[in-house]
Amino acid sequence: MATPCLLLERHRMERNISRLKQGLSALGVGFRPHLKTAKSIDIARLLMPAASGPCTVSTLKEAEQFAAGGVRDILYAVGIAPNKLSRVAALRRGGVDLCIILDSLEQAEAVVAACNVRQRIPVLIEIDSDGHRSGIRPGDAALIEVGRRLHEGGAELRGVMTHAGASYDQAGAIFLRLMAEQERSNAVLCAEQLRAAGLPCPVVSVGSTPTAHFAQDLRGVTEVRAGVFVFFDLVMHGVGVCAIDDIALSVLSTVIGHQREKGWIVVDAGWTALSQDRGTSRQAVDQGYGLICDVAGRAYGDLVVRSVNQEHGILAIREGSESALPELGVGTLVRILPNHACATADHFDCYHVLDESGRVSANWPRFSGW
Amino acid sequence: MATPCLLLERHRMERNISRLKQGLSALGVGFRPHLKTAKSIDIARLLMPAASGPCTVSTLKEAEQFAAGGVRDILYAVGIAPNKLSRVAALRRGGVDLCIILDSLEQAEAVVAACNVRQRIPVLIEIDSDGHRSGIRPGDAALIEVGRRLHEGGAELRGVMTHAGASYDQAGAIFLRLMAEQERSNAVLCAEQLRAAGLPCPVVSVGSTPTAHFAQDLRGVTEVRAGVFVFFDLVMHGVGVCAIDDIALSVLSTVIGHQREKGWIVVDAGWTALSQDRGTSRQAVDQGYGLICDVAGRAYGDLVVRSVNQEHGILAIREGSESALPELGVGTLVRILPNHACATADHFDCYHVLDESGRVSANWPRFSGW
Repeated sequence: MATPCLLLERHRMERNISRLKQGLSALGVGFRPHLKTAKSIDIARLLMPAASGPCTVSTLKEAEQFAAGGVRDILYAVGIAPNKLSRVAALRRGGVDLCIILDSLEQAEAVVAACNVRQRIPVLIEIDSDGHRSGIRPGDAALIEVGRRLHEGGAELRGVMTHAGASYDQAGAIFLRLMAEQERSNAVLCAEQLRAAGLPCPVVSVGSTPTAHFAQDLRGVTEVRAGVFVFFDLVMHGVGVCAIDDIALSVLSTVIGHQREKGWIVVDAGWTALSQDRGTSRQAVDQGYGLICDVAGRAYGDLVVRSVNQEHGILAIREGSESALPELGVGTLVRILPNHACATADHFDCYHVLDESGRVSANWPRFSGW
Repeated sequence: MATPCLLLERHRMERNISRLKQGLSALGVGFRPHLKTAKSIDIARLLMPAASGPCTVSTLKEAEQFAAGGVRDILYAVGIAPNKLSRVAALRRGGVDLCIILDSLEQAEAVVAACNVRQRIPVLIEIDSDGHRSGIRPGDAALIEVGRRLHEGGAELRGVMTHAGASYDQAGAIFLRLMAEQERSNAVLCAEQLRAAGLPCPVVSVGSTPTAHFAQDLRGVTEVRAGVFVFFDLVMHGVGVCAIDDIALSVLSTVIGHQREKGWIVVDAGWTALSQDRGTSRQAVDQGYGLICDVAGRAYGDLVVRSVNQEHGILAIREGSESALPELGVGTLVRILPNHACATADHFDCYHVLDESGRVSANWPRFSGW
C-alpha cells in the first residue's frame, strides 16, 4: 500500500457500533447515526438500523450520495440556506424523506416560500442547549414564532433538535451525564412549549457522541444522533468516552528521515493526511497531531506527532516524558491515531479495511465535498 | 454556485506569477515552480517556463498527474521512502526526468540498490539551511559520505537543494533578506564541498515564497522553487510578502444564521472548507480562520472566522476591535480569505476562475491525495 493511507479496524468499529446501539436500545430511544464521519455507504449500512435509514448528514452531497445508495430517511442537520432549497426539493421529489433544520424566522420564510400543496418540506427547529453554536435558546419567544410560521405557512413542523457540542470541552462521567441531561431537558422543554402552543412536535432529536454514551435517562426524546463514535479518536479518549483500544482509524505512514540530535523522526504524513486538528491541546494529555503505534497497532509509549507540514510529519517524544525515542529506520511503517477522526478521514478517498488478523480484507470508497 | 466553493481571481494570480518571474529573471536564476499549492494542470501551465516544465511536486501523485499532462522535468521534493522507488522508476521509464531528494546514507543505499545500467536515478541531497525540518546540516561529514555513495553506486548525483521553511516564522524585509542569504549561502557552501571532494553538483536549488521574493543576490544558485505565491494568503501577508489585494484565492460561503447577543454570524464554511490552519495566530494580526470580504472581494474591516466546526464557521469582529458587526442576513454570500492557501485549496476539487469583471470564466479541476 502506498503511504500515507487510511486503515480501518473492522472489529473495533463493529464493537463501537454494537455498544452504542445496545445502550440506546436499553434507554428505549431511536438511533439516527450521523454519517458525516464515515461518508461511506459501506459503513452507513453497518450503522443504520435498516438499509433505508434513518440517518443524519452534514452536507447535501452526503444526502445525495446516500440516497443513491438506497437511503430514504435523512436529516440534514446544518441550518438551511435558502440557496440550498432547490437541491432539497429535488431529493424529496426523488422519494427521499429529507428533513431540514433552521433557527430563524428568515429561514422559515424561505422554506415556506418553497412549499406548496405537493411539497411540504419537513423541518426540525434547532435548539441551542449549551451556547455552543446555533439554535434558539430555550425560553426565547422566537421558538413559537418560527414554529407557527412554518406550521401555518405550509411546511411540516416535525419537531425540535439539539446538539450538545459543548460536551467535547470537558472530561469525565459526571460532567458528561450533566451535559446529557441538559441536552435532553432543553429539547424536551422546547417540544412541550410548541405543543402547549397548539403546534405539532412529534420528533425530539438530540445527540453528540459524549452525551449519547453518558445519558442515563432519555424520557421525552425520540431519537439520538452520534457520529464520531464509529471510529472514535484521541479527543474522545481525552473526554473519557473511549479507550485507546477502541480507536478504529489510523493513518499508515513511512519513516523518511531523522534529525537525531533533536530527537526527531520524519514521516510522510503531514497535514494533508492527518489534518491540523489540535483538539487534544486543550486536554489533560496533549497528543500533538497524533499518537504513534507500530504497524500492528501497539502504541510506542509517548511518541507523538509534534508538528506537521504539507507532506511531512515530525515525530518526537511528548514533552515532559522520560521515554526513549524508539529506533525506527528509514522505511519503517507506523500507524498514527488521529486527534479527530472526522477531520483525518476527510483527507482520504478510501478505507483500507483490516480484519482481526490485520490483513486488508476490503477497500471501501469514501467521498468528500458538498 | 453551491457553497462553499473555491474562487480564483485570475488577474491577481497572473500578476503574482509575473512579479516573481521578473524578479528571478533579474537575478539571473532559473525558476522551478512548486505545484503542490495549485495541483491543477491549468495553473501549472501558467506557472512553468514551458509545457514540459520544470516543476516541483510534493507527492508522486502530483508527478503522475502532471506527467500525464505532458510535464517532463519534475523534482519530487520530499525525502524519498524506499517503498516509493518503484513508482519513481515507472515514471522515469515513461520518459519523465523525475529527480528525487534524500538526506541519509540509508536512503542512498536504497536508491543505489534500485539503480542499474539502464536506470540512473537523479538525486539532490537535501541541506538543512535553517533547522526547520529535514536535511543534512552544513559542515556535517554525512554530506560527502552520502554524495560519494550515490555517485559511486550508480545513481546520478545531480546536486543539492534546501528549503528555508523557517522564513515563515518572522516578518519584515530585513529578516527575509537574511533568511534568503542564509538559504543561498548554505546551499552554495555544500555544493562547493561536494565539488571539492571530486563529486558532481550541477544543480543548486533553493526556495520558499518569502526568500524567493526577498533574495537580493543568488550567486551560485541555479534554480529557485516557490509555490504558495501563486495565490498568496493571510500568512504570507502577515510575513510581509504580499498585500491583501494580492490574495487570489477565497472561499465563497453563505450566511445560515446568527447568535445576535453574542455578535456571531454563522456561515456554511467550516473546517472541511477552510482547513484548521491557524498560521496567523503567531503573527501580529490574528486572522482567526480567515478574513471576511463581501461577494465582490472588499474586506469588512475586522470581521474574521472566530471558530470552525465541520460544516459551520462562526464569524465575529476581531477581539479588541471597535468595528461594528455588519448586518448580513441569512442567504448573504461572503468571501473568506484563507490563512494558508495550500491547506484551504486542498479541500476542493475545482477552482471557479473569475475574470476581472468578477464573472466565472472557467472551472479548473484540482486533485489531491497521494
